[in-house]
Amino acid sequence: MSTGVNFCIRCGQPLQDREVFGKIRRTCSGCGYIHFLDPKVAAIVFIVDEHRVLLVKRAENPEKGKWSLPGGFVDAGEDPREAAIREAYEETGLRVTITRLLDVFYFQSPNGSPTPIVIAFEAQMIGGALCAADDAEEVAWFTADKLPELAFASTHTLISRWRSSLSCE
Amino acid sequence: MSTGVNFCIRCGQPLQDREVFGKIRRTCSGCGYIHFLDPKVAAIVFIVDEHRVLLVKRAENPEKGKWSLPGGFVDAGEDPREAAIREAYEETGLRVTITRLLDVFYFQSPNGSPTPIVIAFEAQMIGGALCAADDAEEVAWFTADKLPELAFASTHTLISRWRSSLSCE
Repeated sequence: MSTGVNFCIRCGQPLQDREVFGKIRRTCSGCGYIHFLDPKVAAIVFIVDEHRVLLVKRAENPEKGKWSLPGGFVDAGEDPREAAIREAYEETGLRVTITRLLDVFYFQSPNGSPTPIVIAFEAQMIGGALCAADDAEEVAWFTADKLPELAFASTHTLISRWRSSLSCE
Repeated sequence: MSTGVNFCIRCGQPLQDREVFGKIRRTCSGCGYIHFLDPKVAAIVFIVDEHRVLLVKRAENPEKGKWSLPGGFVDAGEDPREAAIREAYEETGLRVTITRLLDVFYFQSPNGSPTPIVIAFEAQMIGGALCAADDAEEVAWFTADKLPELAFASTHTLISRWRSSLSCE
């Protein structure tokens, strides 16, 4: 069984390669469907409470058992800020409000396969109660001098910037 | 002919609704394919040269004939910063370098259909020669007091912020 893009998602006919909008894309000669390869987008939240950051221990691969900032995939039709708030609640039980945009990351994978665009927000707690769920096996606050093993380049980068900012205070 | 998500893109079998990762999604009982609805992502560039901003007149709908910041869709596997640089070159002929992230926008459509996530970067010219192409019918520099009819909420918002920042200088 092929794992490629073989059949039209609308009408079920076999797809062909055709140049559309400057690129070779999979297209359907039956109904006109064009298969665009859209990027996956993840929204992550950096929640700081005094000198502690909130991290979740990943229950699933990739990076199972390591700790990352709360976050997850943004669905089509979803505001990235709302996705960040939703993921924070699903994984940590906390209600948060977005305070600012921190960065947008794109890290190439070693094998060249597409990786997600990661949109990182800073957030503040406004309610809820700490409770790990969904993709998170545990959730806990950490100070910069006692961090667990971290997952993902986006978490590494933001934690590293946070530690630098603390050392300048 | 339906325009929905009806057939498996891998093996061509009819898809069924099934709850996966907390949502009803279209899935294939034959090969296990799950259809995730990923958002479209656009990258746009705010290129300022002294007190002028670079805008392109749109050659196609939506908003044909109105002026917007240069930009376009990010493909899967593409760094949003590289997509912004590529689109600036394709539409304006200018080579630019990204100087900073400005914002991430998500504007709901009036009818509730999914709209793109828009990632906006500030950029500086580093070469090339002004030449409209691709989605752009014209390209030109504008001062804040003589702007053309603008397209898209993202362009409106960034131009409005730019004008406010100029009035504070």
